[in-house]
Amino acid sequence: MAAQRRIDLVLDSVKRLQRVGAAANLLNLLQKQHPADLAQIFSELPDKDREAAFSVLAERNGRLAMEAISELGHEAGAALLATRSAEEIAKLAQEIASDDAAALIDYLPEELSGAVLDLMRPKESGVVENLLEYEEQTAGRIMNPNVFALSEDLTVGEAITELQTNRDVEMVFYLYVVDERRHLVGVVSLRRLLLVSPETPLKRIMTTDLISARVDMDQEEVARQVASYNLLAIPVVDEENKIAGVITVDDVIDVIKDEATEDIYRLAGVAGDERVFTPASDTFRKRLPTLGIQLVTLFAASAVVAVFEKTIGRVTALAVFMPIVAGMGATAATQTLTVIVRGIALGELTLSNSRKALLKEASIGVGNGILLGGVAAIVAWAAKGDPVLGVLLGAAMIINLFIAATAGTLVPLGLRAVKVDPALASSVVVTTMTDVIGFASFLGLAMVFLRYLAKT
Amino acid sequence: MAAQRRIDLVLDSVKRLQRVGAAANLLNLLQKQHPADLAQIFSELPDKDREAAFSVLAERNGRLAMEAISELGHEAGAALLATRSAEEIAKLAQEIASDDAAALIDYLPEELSGAVLDLMRPKESGVVENLLEYEEQTAGRIMNPNVFALSEDLTVGEAITELQTNRDVEMVFYLYVVDERRHLVGVVSLRRLLLVSPETPLKRIMTTDLISARVDMDQEEVARQVASYNLLAIPVVDEENKIAGVITVDDVIDVIKDEATEDIYRLAGVAGDERVFTPASDTFRKRLPTLGIQLVTLFAASAVVAVFEKTIGRVTALAVFMPIVAGMGATAATQTLTVIVRGIALGELTLSNSRKALLKEASIGVGNGILLGGVAAIVAWAAKGDPVLGVLLGAAMIINLFIAATAGTLVPLGLRAVKVDPALASSVVVTTMTDVIGFASFLGLAMVFLRYLAKT
Repeated sequence: MAAQRRIDLVLDSVKRLQRVGAAANLLNLLQKQHPADLAQIFSELPDKDREAAFSVLAERNGRLAMEAISELGHEAGAALLATRSAEEIAKLAQEIASDDAAALIDYLPEELSGAVLDLMRPKESGVVENLLEYEEQTAGRIMNPNVFALSEDLTVGEAITELQTNRDVEMVFYLYVVDERRHLVGVVSLRRLLLVSPETPLKRIMTTDLISARVDMDQEEVARQVASYNLLAIPVVDEENKIAGVITVDDVIDVIKDEATEDIYRLAGVAGDERVFTPASDTFRKRLPTLGIQLVTLFAASAVVAVFEKTIGRVTALAVFMPIVAGMGATAATQTLTVIVRGIALGELTLSNSRKALLKEASIGVGNGILLGGVAAIVAWAAKGDPVLGVLLGAAMIINLFIAATAGTLVPLGLRAVKVDPALASSVVVTTMTDVIGFASFLGLAMVFLRYLAKT
Repeated sequence: MAAQRRIDLVLDSVKRLQRVGAAANLLNLLQKQHPADLAQIFSELPDKDREAAFSVLAERNGRLAMEAISELGHEAGAALLATRSAEEIAKLAQEIASDDAAALIDYLPEELSGAVLDLMRPKESGVVENLLEYEEQTAGRIMNPNVFALSEDLTVGEAITELQTNRDVEMVFYLYVVDERRHLVGVVSLRRLLLVSPETPLKRIMTTDLISARVDMDQEEVARQVASYNLLAIPVVDEENKIAGVITVDDVIDVIKDEATEDIYRLAGVAGDERVFTPASDTFRKRLPTLGIQLVTLFAASAVVAVFEKTIGRVTALAVFMPIVAGMGATAATQTLTVIVRGIALGELTLSNSRKALLKEASIGVGNGILLGGVAAIVAWAAKGDPVLGVLLGAAMIINLFIAATAGTLVPLGLRAVKVDPALASSVVVTTMTDVIGFASFLGLAMVFLRYLAKT
């Protein structure tokens, strides 16, 4: 909270300085901020002021300006960057690590990104273009190709000298050791360098049993490796085990957040890359498929109701209580589904222990059905004075909550088995099932036992 | 995937060795594994085999056994630990960092944890008890009190000697510099130590503008600081700015994952600490409040339907289509809600930019209503041959999707303003609104325009 308060104060000053047009003071204030704080300040300014503030900073301190927009997120950062000319962008892009540059350039409008790459120094645009050739969401795409790797023939003293002359390699924690053909053969922690005499050959102190990621490894898997082995960085190698780059833990944190957001969003039928301020037209387009599919499935559910229209005509109280059966099914199914989908994502639920999960969920479903169905039965009886109506409502709820639990478990596991992301489609499949079975069981039972029901 | 295959192979061998009772070979195999891999192997073994494997390892390599169960998660780890005697647990607990020991002991049954603390060496149980005195989910609770801090009067050479003699301090990346009363005054990165001459005083090379966390800071805020400033570790200080501990980035990753899980779960009405294999009785108890509240709100919605029971008796087709209005409202509301709640959690949405978000969502809601309501109107007209029914359905959908969008934005922002976690209660409030308004608008319009509707 203290940090937020400080940022709010800076934000107020920024606004004030912009209002009075004090560009020099504004620059001075902005230059004192950490890139992450600048990113937050930018995000809270109105569009015009944001562009103006970025412009002031970009002209005088390109590196800080670029670091700030990298922290802002690549999509929002690129939008801000796109307000500058291609020449300026090309110059600015060379101020930051090539993986960040690549990610920002990738989000620029196509024409602009082409022009920017043409205008960059050939060596640097080559590095960026190489990165952009890897598939999205792979290790190759998010790695920093500027990796600190030393020959296995060096001594500790020579390694320290190398470290002293390469001051701008970002966040070095490990020295990667390579053979003469740049095959990754070992790793030495920075701390270990401090603990041995300068004459020691790297070969003797390096760890050869090291964890690396292939360039084509999915970024989620990379994150899982870094998280489970508590690494600060993971080296990335190509098909021949030659070192190609490094992914640091700060990038892994971004991946973990993005993947969590994606999971949350997919469960709700929202595209993984949507953000609060994604333009309305994009948002509209991205959310429409889910809504369209939902409309179709709801018509399927209403077709089930239509089958029993005559029964409803006799006992209109059925229309009053049928949303309860379907609604409780959807809520219980969402609970089960969420736990199962997250369990799969975190690696806690596997095929070998899924039977145990199914039995657990099914028993909870029946338990909920008996308890909540019982309560609903009594309320319905009291409200309409018809005990049979209550019993039918309770029975339909038991059936539907059992279905909700088993479908909520089996559907994501099944999707996973056929390599579909369980977060993506489970929700619509399962809630359609609980709608259809909820209506069918309640109205179906009512039709069968119609003669025992009080007519309205 | 390669890592998973290797673990599966080890798992098969473990099972085989357990079957034939080859304890020495089993120990040998287990000792070669990384703690994180052991944790996964343990989690995939049936309960009995897991206890047996842990027992074999704990007797011969207590440290590795304890590291493995720390990786398993504190709740599951404590359950495994609880199968041993208090004496053994006390001995094992001293093998790992006190923050991990504290977290495991905290999850033991109360009697057992008391006995374990009594049996530990007084100094170590004191440290653990201190940690457990901090509130759950605060910096103090998750920090490692064993922090590497040096006096500002030392030179770089002396600091390196200290580092060499303190080999078991885990994961040192930064040296924290303190004054004679252990107030935190600066930080020096390990890399910086390598780059200057040994005679340099720490005071001269330390950064004094450093980011720290107070012991009572919420762990989510700690994680946000580490993530946004790209730190590898954050020092934790008490009220007087004296250094109390350190939180490393690997613990921050666990916090980020747990908080993401909590957000996902709360949106679905599941308790934040539930896992796939939480015992069924606990799960049942934890999910019941949401289901109970949902049942009450569904009865409220059905009371709305009951108001229009006579109208439904005249036109039973209304019962067929009413789930569509409510269902589309719930789906659209969930989409909006999820983006808004996640935007708040990630710090992208603040009070100052919420108006923009509201206008965006409201316009999308109306757009969706016109498009999808139009489609639904045509389908209903075609199905029942009554254009008026179609028009009423379409109109009700426009109303309900507008309500879904505005409530989906305002309810979480409102909850946030009154300091209630928006993930916790938004869903039930908003879907109740879309149910009630969905039924009321559709059936209400039908009642008003009843004379124009084809009777059934």
